[in-house]
Amino acid sequence: MVHHHVLSAEQPSIDVSTSLSDTIIDVHTHTYPPSYIDLLASRTEVPYIYRPSDGSDPRLIILPSDDDATKPPSKRGRPVDVSYSSWDEKIKFMKTHDISISVVSLANPWLDFLPTSTALSTAQQINNDLNAACNSQNSKNNPTARLYAFASLPLSATPDEITTEIQRLKSLSNMKGVILGTSGLGSGLDDPNMHPVWSALESTQTMVFLHPHYGLPELAFGGSEVIARSGHVLPLALGFPLETTIAVTRMYLAGVFDRFPKLKMLLAHSGGTLPFLAGRIQSCVGHEREFVMNGGDKEGPRRDIWDVLKTNIWLDAVVYGNAGLKAAIEAAGGVEGGADRLMFGTDHPFFPPLKSGENGGKWLSVQSNLAAISGVTKEDEEVRRKILVGNAARVLGIEI
Amino acid sequence: MVHHHVLSAEQPSIDVSTSLSDTIIDVHTHTYPPSYIDLLASRTEVPYIYRPSDGSDPRLIILPSDDDATKPPSKRGRPVDVSYSSWDEKIKFMKTHDISISVVSLANPWLDFLPTSTALSTAQQINNDLNAACNSQNSKNNPTARLYAFASLPLSATPDEITTEIQRLKSLSNMKGVILGTSGLGSGLDDPNMHPVWSALESTQTMVFLHPHYGLPELAFGGSEVIARSGHVLPLALGFPLETTIAVTRMYLAGVFDRFPKLKMLLAHSGGTLPFLAGRIQSCVGHEREFVMNGGDKEGPRRDIWDVLKTNIWLDAVVYGNAGLKAAIEAAGGVEGGADRLMFGTDHPFFPPLKSGENGGKWLSVQSNLAAISGVTKEDEEVRRKILVGNAARVLGIEI
Repeated sequence: MVHHHVLSAEQPSIDVSTSLSDTIIDVHTHTYPPSYIDLLASRTEVPYIYRPSDGSDPRLIILPSDDDATKPPSKRGRPVDVSYSSWDEKIKFMKTHDISISVVSLANPWLDFLPTSTALSTAQQINNDLNAACNSQNSKNNPTARLYAFASLPLSATPDEITTEIQRLKSLSNMKGVILGTSGLGSGLDDPNMHPVWSALESTQTMVFLHPHYGLPELAFGGSEVIARSGHVLPLALGFPLETTIAVTRMYLAGVFDRFPKLKMLLAHSGGTLPFLAGRIQSCVGHEREFVMNGGDKEGPRRDIWDVLKTNIWLDAVVYGNAGLKAAIEAAGGVEGGADRLMFGTDHPFFPPLKSGENGGKWLSVQSNLAAISGVTKEDEEVRRKILVGNAARVLGIEI
Repeated sequence: MVHHHVLSAEQPSIDVSTSLSDTIIDVHTHTYPPSYIDLLASRTEVPYIYRPSDGSDPRLIILPSDDDATKPPSKRGRPVDVSYSSWDEKIKFMKTHDISISVVSLANPWLDFLPTSTALSTAQQINNDLNAACNSQNSKNNPTARLYAFASLPLSATPDEITTEIQRLKSLSNMKGVILGTSGLGSGLDDPNMHPVWSALESTQTMVFLHPHYGLPELAFGGSEVIARSGHVLPLALGFPLETTIAVTRMYLAGVFDRFPKLKMLLAHSGGTLPFLAGRIQSCVGHEREFVMNGGDKEGPRRDIWDVLKTNIWLDAVVYGNAGLKAAIEAAGGVEGGADRLMFGTDHPFFPPLKSGENGGKWLSVQSNLAAISGVTKEDEEVRRKILVGNAARVLGIEI
C-alpha cells in the first residue's frame, strides 16, 4: 500500500516507505484561517467571536445554545486559542499523534451565513488562503507533515456562482473536495434547488464532506433547561450525529442518489447514526404505502440504501468506540469491502485534553478513535492500515 | 439451554425439548385489548381511533403527523384491522414465524394521556384484562403458543398510585415487566419526580421496556411539508429511534443509573441508536468541563456508559440489519457477553406485508430481523439461540 513519494521534480526520489509505514492521514481536522477569524470577530450574532468586556480571552460562539448572555464569559462557547488558527499548532498536533498528512477544513458553520453579494468573493479568498497555506507547508518537502484541504462553498451566492466556484476549485492543487453543512441553500439537502450544485459536484467528481452544525431543535432534548443540566453533551454527543443522519436520509428519500448516482460523500462522525439505522430506513421504505413502488403516488427512493452506502458514501472513523465502528464497517460493505470506505479522523482542534501536558501530549479523543480502530481490526493489520491511511490516499488521490 | 416445562402442578411433566429446540420468544409485540380500543374510540384527539364519515374502516391516529384532516381517510393513520386486538391473529402470526412465546405490550402511547382521576383504575382494568387474556391462552396448555405481557403504568396518577400499581403487578402471574414511554410524568425520564417510580421499579426488580412514541419535533426534519414527502418514513425510521436515544441518554446524564444502580431496562429497537453513539457520549462526558469530575460544578454521571450498557440495559433485536445488530451486541459487551443481552422481537402488528398472502404469510419485517440475527451469529448457533429464545427466558423468567 505504501508508495514512494517523489517530493518534487528537482529532487531525487526519497524512499520514505519506512518512515511512512506507520503514517496516518487525518481527513477530519478543522482550522480557522486568519481571514475566517477576522470574519467571525466582525460579527455580533451566532456564529461569532465574542470578546468579553472583562478582558479575558475571546470566546467562539458557534451554537445558539452557547449564546447565553446570562452566563459568565468563561462559560460561553469555547476559548479561541492558538490551536484554532496556528499551522504550527496543527503540525505539532500531527507529530504528537504520528499523523503525517491532514486534510483540513473550516469548522462549522463555514460560510453559510454570508450575504449573497459577498459570498463568492469571500469564499474565493478563504479557499485561496487555505490552498496557499497548504502550499506553504508542502513546499517544505517534509514528508511527515503535509497539508491538503476541503474547500468551503458560497452557498448563499447564486447557483451559477456556486457552480463556478466548484469548478474553479479543481485548479487549486491542494483541494481534495468540499465540506458541506446540512442546510444546503437554506432548505436542506433534499431541496430541488440543490440539483445544480449536486450536478456540478458529481460532474467534477468532487468529494463532499458532509458535516453537522445546526444540531436539533432544543425541544427535541426537552428544551434549553434540560440541555443546560449537562453542559454541551446533548447537542454535541447527540444533536450533531442525529442532524447528519436526518440530512443524509432526507437526501436518500428524495432520490438525490438516484438522480446523481456518481455523487461522492464522506460523512462526518461515521455517518452520524446512518450505519445503525440503515436497516430500519430500508424496512420503512419497503413498507411505506405512499411510495410508487408500493402502490402509492410518491416517488420514493429507487435505490437500495445499502447500495448507496457501498457506492456513494464513505465514512470517517470518528465514532469513539468499537460498537459504532463495527456498524460503520458492516454498513459500508462488511469486513471485505466495508473497511475500504472508512477513513481516520480526529476532529482537531475540538475535544482537547482537559489538562494540558498530561498523557505525553496525546489527546484522549484521538486515542479513543485509534483504540477503536485497533480493537475492531486487531485480527488484520492490513485493514487497520487501510482505515488509518490507505483508503484516504486512494479515494482522495493523496500520494504516500 | 432448553429446559423441560412443567405445564401445571396437576399434569405430568411433558418433555417439549424437541419441539421447542427451534422456538422463539418475541419480546416486542403489541396488542390493543378491547378495553383499550374502546378507550381510543371514545376520544377525538391524538391518540384516537377515527371513524371516517364515508363508512370506510376505522383508522388509528397515534402520531400528531397522522392527524391531518386535509388528507383523505385512507391516508390518515393506519387501518385498525383484526390484527390489532385479536388473540387468534396474534397466535396465527406466532405460528407462521415459529414464535411459541410472546411477551405482549400495549402499543404506544399506552396510558400516558389519561386524566389523573381515572388513571389508576383504568390501568388496573387494562392490566387485569391483559393478564387474563394471557391466562386464558396459557390454560390451553399449548407449549407452542404461550403469552406473557408487559403492563402499562398509570403515569398521570399520583406517585403513590403509580407505586401501588408497580407493586400490585407482581401479583399478576403473566406480567414480565412494564412498558414505558419517554415522557415519564410529562417532563422526561430525567425528571427528579420520577425517582419514586424508579425506586419502586428497582426494588421490585421490574423490567422496564422503554419504547418511543413522541418522535422528534417536526422542525428536526425540516417541518411537516418535508416529512409529508416521504409518508411516514422520517418519523418512523428516524424519529422513533432518535427519541429513545435522547431519552435514555438524558437518564444517563442525570445520574439515574447512579442513583438506581439495579434498574433493569430493555430498550426498544436495539436502543434506538444508543449502541452506535455510546462512544461519542462517553467521549463528550469525559471532555465536558462543566461536570464535577472535570473541574466544573454540574454533577454529571458517575458511571461509565459502557458499564451501564453491560449492567442495566438489555436490547431487543429489532434493528433490521447486520450493521445495527453488530453494534448492539458489541455495545452490550462484545461477542462474549453482549450476545447475552439481546432479545428477538417483531413489532407486530406493525409493518405488515403490503400484500397479504405472499411469501407464505411470513412478514418481510420479521424476516429481515431473523436474517440479521442469522447473519451476525452465523458462526455460532448457540449465540443465535440465545438471542432468539435463551436470553428472554433467562432474564424475564420464562420457562422453556
